Amino acid sequence: MFAPVYLDWNASAPLDPAVREAMLPWLGERFGNASSRHEYGRQARAAIDTARAQVAAAVNAHPTEVVFTSGGSEANNLFIKGAAAMMKPGLVAVSAVEHPCVREPARQLRRSGWVMREVGVDAEGRLRADDWRSTLEARPSLVSVMLANNETGVLQDVRAHAAEARAGGAYMHTDAVQALGKIEVDFRALGANAMTLSAHKIGGPVGAGALIVDKRVELAPLIAGGGQERGLRSGTENVAAIVGFGLACELAAKRQREEHDRLLVLRERLEQSLAATGAVLFSKAGERLPNTSFFGFEGLDGETLVGKLDRAGFACASGSACSSANPEPSHALLAMGVAPELARSAVRVSLGRDTTAQQLADFDTALARIVHELRNLAAMAA
Amino acid sequence: MFAPVYLDWNASAPLDPAVREAMLPWLGERFGNASSRHEYGRQARAAIDTARAQVAAAVNAHPTEVVFTSGGSEANNLFIKGAAAMMKPGLVAVSAVEHPCVREPARQLRRSGWVMREVGVDAEGRLRADDWRSTLEARPSLVSVMLANNETGVLQDVRAHAAEARAGGAYMHTDAVQALGKIEVDFRALGANAMTLSAHKIGGPVGAGALIVDKRVELAPLIAGGGQERGLRSGTENVAAIVGFGLACELAAKRQREEHDRLLVLRERLEQSLAATGAVLFSKAGERLPNTSFFGFEGLDGETLVGKLDRAGFACASGSACSSANPEPSHALLAMGVAPELARSAVRVSLGRDTTAQQLADFDTALARIVHELRNLAAMAA
Repeated sequence: MFAPVYLDWNASAPLDPAVREAMLPWLGERFGNASSRHEYGRQARAAIDTARAQVAAAVNAHPTEVVFTSGGSEANNLFIKGAAAMMKPGLVAVSAVEHPCVREPARQLRRSGWVMREVGVDAEGRLRADDWRSTLEARPSLVSVMLANNETGVLQDVRAHAAEARAGGAYMHTDAVQALGKIEVDFRALGANAMTLSAHKIGGPVGAGALIVDKRVELAPLIAGGGQERGLRSGTENVAAIVGFGLACELAAKRQREEHDRLLVLRERLEQSLAATGAVLFSKAGERLPNTSFFGFEGLDGETLVGKLDRAGFACASGSACSSANPEPSHALLAMGVAPELARSAVRVSLGRDTTAQQLADFDTALARIVHELRNLAAMAA
Repeated sequence: MFAPVYLDWNASAPLDPAVREAMLPWLGERFGNASSRHEYGRQARAAIDTARAQVAAAVNAHPTEVVFTSGGSEANNLFIKGAAAMMKPGLVAVSAVEHPCVREPARQLRRSGWVMREVGVDAEGRLRADDWRSTLEARPSLVSVMLANNETGVLQDVRAHAAEARAGGAYMHTDAVQALGKIEVDFRALGANAMTLSAHKIGGPVGAGALIVDKRVELAPLIAGGGQERGLRSGTENVAAIVGFGLACELAAKRQREEHDRLLVLRERLEQSLAATGAVLFSKAGERLPNTSFFGFEGLDGETLVGKLDRAGFACASGSACSSANPEPSHALLAMGVAPELARSAVRVSLGRDTTAQQLADFDTALARIVHELRNLAAMAA
């Protein structure tokens, strides 16, 4: 099989071979339903308990605070809708650069009488202090601010925001899906009431995620039924995926510092080349994930660029890869005040564990050639 | 590994080796996010399209009617809550023997002003005609009646109920999770508006299911976000699980008739032995799935029986295995008017593709011995 160079790790990371090995028995002879009270069921239950402890340890939470879900989107929806269902309608505030799986459920709350507010961001994509302050003055009941943005990689000061939001009586949630494994993620230190994780962004399988949630937050289940996950998430547990998620969390926490430093070196070299090719780097001055570069080229089209890079053997993203068939320019960039024209030219390169300096040197050569060709075409057409 | 004889196929079926083979590449080198617009993403998208066609073909639906979910519980919740969210509060009617993942979301609707009604069943567990008629007279907006019960295996006349419910203006849903692969499941012929399927009951993986839903039904997504599954179910698609689900559906449809007849022969022989051991068979006179026997013994405790069978090397269920740590007697049996004492003695044996006549003969010997011992103990204590 032709294997393009993969530079889209924020969309999904390949399954770590060690994680795959750990999962295989659960796709084979260990097939029991964890609710069954026989040998097969007990094996499954014990494996889930182990994974729960691994996930909790990786983010400094307590195992009883881990609610397994089918992924990050479900965990975000569970917090927003689940917490709202137990409260009187009020104000839900989310940052303007949240992933759609936070913004959309927050919007859906409007149908049940909630007010939804997006907190504006500055040119780097970080919460604007004035808008944040006036949001807090409006006394939100629920607040969600992501730890790291999926597109720009920009980090929010969740620790400070959590303290302020909670002091005002809100429940504070943070989407840590993109942060896990790339920077330190410490649930206790952040001081949020709830936090979302996803397995497949860190070398675990698609199909597992978690809402880490402290006991103060009352939640109605999104998926009600058999009463699994302390009644907060019914449905037969996906043992194979949960086992993989547990190990992936353990490995991610263990490798995080070293990987951070390695990726940062690679990315800084890449961004020097990008600047030489004439790229405008987004969130350049903001504190960012070590693996993410989001950039554009005046006058070019991001979809075209990504298509040409794909044919040249490089897999990267034009906008948020989590969004299906959405040709709109990046919501995050527009919120940051980037002109729609420039936002439409955006390309995201996200690095991961298998990324090498050679791959990036090859990518840079291909990108420079493609940009040169497209500029020549544009000049000829003008 | 010690491998007990598995007689709990209604709780979960082992992953079919052919399904596992089909899934493995998607847990390996084919790791792309299906929303990504590069080679890895396109491969994933194409695989999902193929699986969607397989699922649709297996149940005589159109591929555009298939909404992939993380499983049956999510699909049931999606229909009940998703349809209700788009309507004025009204009456939701479900049978008294539905799985908790239908009953509980229906109950949750009460919080938003809905009236929830459970339609009573007769001694065999089938809808009582009088209660069904008066339910229809109350003009329900949403009706859910399962095709086959997970505990007794009893079948409902969904085709007739769907016609009646729809004639009265209701949206009709059926949970076909236990029926798929065991009896014919034809979405068009049933005439329901929506139907739930699950992969892991038919030799597919845990982590995939579907709501089959016709275009008449407007649904709000349970999991909102990136807009996958035509906006009805956001979240990165679990490609490996979906691929496995597709193949499992194809195989289930292909093998259904032959398996039905084979299992029925095995089960009838088993039930003769059970009668000789003094078992009371539930739903005996009702039309049932070919693989399910649900029975009890006057004066004995089901949990104790299942525990002793487990130690003797036989894995079966005492109540619904999908229900976590729930020591209540079977809700279905109580709804059928079975005395709580007898309901507490219930044991479910469910057969599947690997079940052999020899396994059942061994089971019968072990069960007769255990029942004899327990009766002797009881006699000594009396």
